[in-house]
Amino acid sequence: METPEQRNARHKKAMQRKKAHIDQRIAAATTDKGLLLVLTGNGKGKSSSAFGMLARSVGHGLRCGVVQFIKGQWECGEHLLFAEHPQVEFQVMNTGFTWETQDRDSDIAAAEATWAHAERLLADNSIDVVLLDELTYMLTYGYLNPDRVLSALQNRPTSQHVIITGRNASKSLIELADTVSEINDVKHAFNAGIKVQKGIDY
Amino acid sequence: METPEQRNARHKKAMQRKKAHIDQRIAAATTDKGLLLVLTGNGKGKSSSAFGMLARSVGHGLRCGVVQFIKGQWECGEHLLFAEHPQVEFQVMNTGFTWETQDRDSDIAAAEATWAHAERLLADNSIDVVLLDELTYMLTYGYLNPDRVLSALQNRPTSQHVIITGRNASKSLIELADTVSEINDVKHAFNAGIKVQKGIDY
Repeated sequence: METPEQRNARHKKAMQRKKAHIDQRIAAATTDKGLLLVLTGNGKGKSSSAFGMLARSVGHGLRCGVVQFIKGQWECGEHLLFAEHPQVEFQVMNTGFTWETQDRDSDIAAAEATWAHAERLLADNSIDVVLLDELTYMLTYGYLNPDRVLSALQNRPTSQHVIITGRNASKSLIELADTVSEINDVKHAFNAGIKVQKGIDY
Repeated sequence: METPEQRNARHKKAMQRKKAHIDQRIAAATTDKGLLLVLTGNGKGKSSSAFGMLARSVGHGLRCGVVQFIKGQWECGEHLLFAEHPQVEFQVMNTGFTWETQDRDSDIAAAEATWAHAERLLADNSIDVVLLDELTYMLTYGYLNPDRVLSALQNRPTSQHVIITGRNASKSLIELADTVSEINDVKHAFNAGIKVQKGIDY
């Protein structure tokens, strides 16, 4: 049977090995660049993750631009917190979900008008972080030209971070991205008959 | 060949069907309760997702408590933004990673002292949202008693939301949770030699 002292000594040794491994990995990461992050998958947490990174960025004093596609019909907590913040420029498409409008032509016009804000932010050197919330749906539905979107992302300032959220991110978006996280439901309260919750879901 | 008018009519019909389906699902979700959310998996976005929900909650005027396990050795953007916010109480374990301390006994003492803050928040009716960041590691390492943790979660105020992050969430934590999201890396910038980035990673 191991004594507490032996247990502690074994722990210390394991942690020394772990530290050596992690230090080596940190030393190997030497590139500094603006990242393209994609948060996709069917699970809960894509937009919230993006807004968590926005919170971090604002905390560090970075200048941020947010463009929300689809949303905007009800009062979201992220909008309440960030829309008036001096470091954040916040644009909302504001048409509601495409199954609410039921009008393809007006959806396309709204998507293109909203994308124009994104393009402006992606050309602006003074913006450190750009969040394009729910952008992927605009591509899935064919509301935006994918080449135009990819070209604006590729030609942005080299130090600018971009965060894109939404289900079914396209192959070309994933190829261009530096970090791609896929978020899947293990379980979801909504499927158990629980209402969407203020602060958690919106 | 479909005319633009036919295309639009088909779109409208599909969206009407989608709306009927979604409205039915929304109508079926009638329960209102404090949720237990677990964000787990090896991918990037667990803590950021939790802090995004915190941002939403703060935006809606909710009172929030944050307890960060492990972290606290360097200045994180989420701490810079929320620690001084009047709606947020923010506690940090502040010992650094367990491979930095390399001392099991002092890690356990720090984990227990930090958990005492969590227990107090989980017993406080006036706190709407409790974020327990990186809690799972305290259970994986055996630093906290899992029964004590589960019991505090089960006995919390019924309307209180709790968000827990970290890899390898235990089976009993997943069973107790209302919503569990698993976040996996499709790719991660760090593995391509890119440094952790301010605002994105911390």
